[in-house]
Amino acid sequence: MHHSWFKGDFSPANETKVFINDLGLLRGYGLFDYFRTYNLKPFQWDWYWERYERSAKLLRIPNPITKEEAFEVVTKLIAMQGVQDCAIRFLLTGGYSTDSVTSPEPNLLIVSEELHPSKEADYEHGIKVITHEYVRDLPTIKSIDYKHYMILQQDLREQNASDVLFVKNGEISELSRSNVFLINGKKLITPNENILEGITRKTVLELAKADFEIELRAVTLMELLAAEEVFTTSTTKRVLPISKVDEHIIGSGKIGAKTQALLDKINALVEAW
Amino acid sequence: MHHSWFKGDFSPANETKVFINDLGLLRGYGLFDYFRTYNLKPFQWDWYWERYERSAKLLRIPNPITKEEAFEVVTKLIAMQGVQDCAIRFLLTGGYSTDSVTSPEPNLLIVSEELHPSKEADYEHGIKVITHEYVRDLPTIKSIDYKHYMILQQDLREQNASDVLFVKNGEISELSRSNVFLINGKKLITPNENILEGITRKTVLELAKADFEIELRAVTLMELLAAEEVFTTSTTKRVLPISKVDEHIIGSGKIGAKTQALLDKINALVEAW
Repeated sequence: MHHSWFKGDFSPANETKVFINDLGLLRGYGLFDYFRTYNLKPFQWDWYWERYERSAKLLRIPNPITKEEAFEVVTKLIAMQGVQDCAIRFLLTGGYSTDSVTSPEPNLLIVSEELHPSKEADYEHGIKVITHEYVRDLPTIKSIDYKHYMILQQDLREQNASDVLFVKNGEISELSRSNVFLINGKKLITPNENILEGITRKTVLELAKADFEIELRAVTLMELLAAEEVFTTSTTKRVLPISKVDEHIIGSGKIGAKTQALLDKINALVEAW
Repeated sequence: MHHSWFKGDFSPANETKVFINDLGLLRGYGLFDYFRTYNLKPFQWDWYWERYERSAKLLRIPNPITKEEAFEVVTKLIAMQGVQDCAIRFLLTGGYSTDSVTSPEPNLLIVSEELHPSKEADYEHGIKVITHEYVRDLPTIKSIDYKHYMILQQDLREQNASDVLFVKNGEISELSRSNVFLINGKKLITPNENILEGITRKTVLELAKADFEIELRAVTLMELLAAEEVFTTSTTKRVLPISKVDEHIIGSGKIGAKTQALLDKINALVEAW
């Protein structure tokens, strides 16, 4: 059973509540981070913690917990939920406010959640994404601001698409909750600005070093549409091929050999975690 | 005592809670509206309701209540809080979600709150605002996204400023939670794009028709700094003079005669509401 940790107490996740004067709810003033376990051990904990701390600093919400205390909470939440792997969410908001602006202290919630893995077929055939003219506001911060993605839910359903690719003035940045990579020959290319620096992105860049020339730079949509292979990376997706962008077929229209090799590499890494 | 209405139940506002899987909290997927009473009657109810409905439509969150039902709730909340004037907040979020994205139904909360009026001295001397390079994301929607304003709280305190004026590429749009007007001779000028169309803005435009030539158009920061008088309008501020923008003094450095005349007009309107 999944539990939450909030203000020092553990309780069942589906019974945990916050007062309505929380600044996350009233003012969208909040950030989160999200990682998963493999073999019941948090994957890349050091990197996720570092990013959580950086988001808090950039959004100017004081982080109320040390890394050691947080790790103890995480360990306990994993043990409480049972023997399956799970996700862990940190949610840090501006806290409770009596005037809708100021607050004496932030609210930090840590909660274990069920995993929502991608479909097996998607790893073979790739997913379809639709483009949307937008670049995330304060993109280096993992803020809770997903309103553009949420507004587009209906378009995604109507167009049988799995996700949104953000494009601004012809340059791509990222998907709603994951990074994007191109492969051309020996080159592995991914945007390096206006993005959230994903932990899986960082992991894949490490794994790819030996076999690819890596280019971190601005990438146009035209370049992406003409790429041999395209894939996306995230905590839950690992390495997931993209086979269609709007109505354009990418490469062979299914997972490419080099994307498959990177997927195999990360699968081997997480299995041995 | 202030109360909330949530899912059909009335309860004390300071005891009302939401589950942590609300999409407002997890994904910043929410909007609100906010109005006040004068003589215990909701001010410009029809206009506020219309804006709330428009925000919901644009953010694609289904509005779960009719105007008549909402008015009944508002009337009851006003009666429950006593004999003083109060504010009423509508907060509409994407609702509870088991996968952090989809939800069977939205969450609507209606709550009465204490008013936080501006200081009397500010109406005489005017307020200081600081400029910030930004234009609100989806500005015509009253979404809960105030992260830029929240991040700037420390700057506001350090610079003894009351609010933030958003400027993008030399053009002004609005303050964090209010509209901005310039007066030059017989001209009353206010931006008409990239703004939330304030109900007090609309009220002031009505009141000013007889005495001013009204210009609704793009306005540069240079033009604002050189204006004879500048003021801001909002539900709680009504007409509040701005006497300083960063380190520039506006006009005489205190409330101007024409701003005072508009303030007198709106004060007369609300007193007789």
